[in-house]
Amino acid sequence: MSTVGKAITCTAAVAYEAGKPLTVEEIIVDPPKAHEVRIKVEYTAVCHTDAYTLSGKDPEGAFPSVLGHEGAGIVESVGEGVTNVKPGDHVIALYTAECMKCKFCKSGKTNLCGAVRATQGKGVMPDGTVRFHNKKGEDLLHFMGCSTFSQYTVVADVSVVAIDPKAPMDRACLLGCGVTTGYGAAIKTANVQKGDTVAVFGAGTVGLSIVQGAKVRGASRIIVIDLNQGKKDWSFQFGATDFVNPSTDLKEGETIVSKLIEMTDGGLDFTFDCTGNVHVMRDALEACHKGWGQSIIIGVAAAGEEISTRPFQLVTGRVWKGSAFGGIKGRSDMGGLISDYMNGKLKVDEFVTHERKFTDINEAFEDLHHGDCLRTVLDLSK
Amino acid sequence: MSTVGKAITCTAAVAYEAGKPLTVEEIIVDPPKAHEVRIKVEYTAVCHTDAYTLSGKDPEGAFPSVLGHEGAGIVESVGEGVTNVKPGDHVIALYTAECMKCKFCKSGKTNLCGAVRATQGKGVMPDGTVRFHNKKGEDLLHFMGCSTFSQYTVVADVSVVAIDPKAPMDRACLLGCGVTTGYGAAIKTANVQKGDTVAVFGAGTVGLSIVQGAKVRGASRIIVIDLNQGKKDWSFQFGATDFVNPSTDLKEGETIVSKLIEMTDGGLDFTFDCTGNVHVMRDALEACHKGWGQSIIIGVAAAGEEISTRPFQLVTGRVWKGSAFGGIKGRSDMGGLISDYMNGKLKVDEFVTHERKFTDINEAFEDLHHGDCLRTVLDLSK
Repeated sequence: MSTVGKAITCTAAVAYEAGKPLTVEEIIVDPPKAHEVRIKVEYTAVCHTDAYTLSGKDPEGAFPSVLGHEGAGIVESVGEGVTNVKPGDHVIALYTAECMKCKFCKSGKTNLCGAVRATQGKGVMPDGTVRFHNKKGEDLLHFMGCSTFSQYTVVADVSVVAIDPKAPMDRACLLGCGVTTGYGAAIKTANVQKGDTVAVFGAGTVGLSIVQGAKVRGASRIIVIDLNQGKKDWSFQFGATDFVNPSTDLKEGETIVSKLIEMTDGGLDFTFDCTGNVHVMRDALEACHKGWGQSIIIGVAAAGEEISTRPFQLVTGRVWKGSAFGGIKGRSDMGGLISDYMNGKLKVDEFVTHERKFTDINEAFEDLHHGDCLRTVLDLSK
Repeated sequence: MSTVGKAITCTAAVAYEAGKPLTVEEIIVDPPKAHEVRIKVEYTAVCHTDAYTLSGKDPEGAFPSVLGHEGAGIVESVGEGVTNVKPGDHVIALYTAECMKCKFCKSGKTNLCGAVRATQGKGVMPDGTVRFHNKKGEDLLHFMGCSTFSQYTVVADVSVVAIDPKAPMDRACLLGCGVTTGYGAAIKTANVQKGDTVAVFGAGTVGLSIVQGAKVRGASRIIVIDLNQGKKDWSFQFGATDFVNPSTDLKEGETIVSKLIEMTDGGLDFTFDCTGNVHVMRDALEACHKGWGQSIIIGVAAAGEEISTRPFQLVTGRVWKGSAFGGIKGRSDMGGLISDYMNGKLKVDEFVTHERKFTDINEAFEDLHHGDCLRTVLDLSK
């Protein structure tokens, strides 16, 4: 029996309160309104941003809500006026929308679409209301325009992209955040060129995807810095040429900055922070080569924290910038990333270290704290 | 009688001690060694960097020394192996050298030549010795590789460029620092394009030269911010479209950042700090447009001061960078700037608000503190 136009009752993992486990329960998902798309979520991964919001440290985090933003699924139905996807399409939800019409999209200079930004930040759909309700009749907020921790979700049409149906969704879902964020930061934001030297601070999914991007571009040196020695093998597997563990590899009087500058005869062409630690962000900048080195911030710092450095670092030619979703335009560029994956140019499968059924989602949050976990993929059919 | 190969006794203004006036006295200037050039300095201007070093606030300032770095003159003699200039050439001394051979020069990415950097920073010639001595036989240090506060100076051959002899030296000397630093920051470091919006914090010679560069490029909006209302007319004269005095033009609850963002519908494409104030540097960054705005630091901050901001400012697409000598390569690019000046494209004469004889140099330092002074040019023949 068709579900089109009707509310759907399905299983979701609801975040009722900061610092508490998610509640796996049945919720009601309204049909999509105009320019909205209802997706049957097939697979979702758990990302550190979900954990950050659930922890309560994110000052903009609001509850109760349906978290999750790294997911893939199949379009169940579409609201009026939706033309970019149709029922049956395999899709990835996009926390960075692309409307192709706003000042940002038309600038050609950024992927930060402004179309649904304000409402997305408030956890509501563009019309200001929600599509999720619990069985008590309470409204549940949306999250990052995606809310993939539900068997069905509703997103704005500008926040979804159809992908090649041959791409396995239990892997492609990772392109919804981590892999794309890192790979894009290297090939798009930094635009690493053949022979460049690169350092990556933090060897999680984002950092290792930067390593991949730098390798694809022919970087001459790819140095990974991580305090977890267990990341060494992974770093080399993804293409790193060097691994430095600051807790064990620094000689007396050496700092990570002085070591990197010495290793690269003056500093790096590009450095990337994937830690969210503002002190590491400073080190990353100061390890750049005078005259041209660029440091790119990707990690999300804790609320209220600030980066700082002496302005002399910039006056002498270093550039400090950032990257969100790897500078990737979700609807325009995702096809190319899926192709890179299908053609073996972009590793994605290798990031899936854990697989669980959806109802074990709280264990997946635990996995994130273990050094042996890159990504846990949840199967929403289970 | 030829002075070639001989020491020359001439008048110089010697900085013996921080915070004290310069001593105008006769000094002895040695002949140039290999790859050195002795210049008869005709005109020099006084720049805030000279005043900063003389004040004692510059932790790298060393005494006794011959300051001055914005000068033009005529080559008196050259040492062995000098091929880029010859006696009689009209020249500008370059505090940013260009050797065309080092890693920096060959990178194509920066104007920060490394050839004489280490010795220049120590106030000595590349061989580690000085060419200046007072009548007591004491050595006097060089400054910024130029030392134009002397009727004769000796510089490295990589630190001097010949210019069109038709260019008046009492004006062209300003291309040795301030005008070039600002104009270059706009047309080279920022590479402002037609229609871009630009804000300039601080309307001195550097700031007003940025205004000129932005105007030459067809910027749609050029907003100057200065606490000195007297800079308003000058700003418009050089091409500004708006002038904001934060001490009088902000409404209650408004900040300079919020005002600029409101004036430009979201923020500026480029902002420039020419104040050296780290709080202004932060404002300049945060007034940039999300997604693509770039803020360029030019001002020199006091020792130990640091810039800071929330990393979110960068993750959402703003870029923080700096510019030294406007990104201009002194030997390769100066000819073009002189042409721009001779063709009326680049205003230089307008910056000369005061002219004095060399022996009144201490008054020229006083001039700098007055809002009605952009540049004082000193005539070294007087």
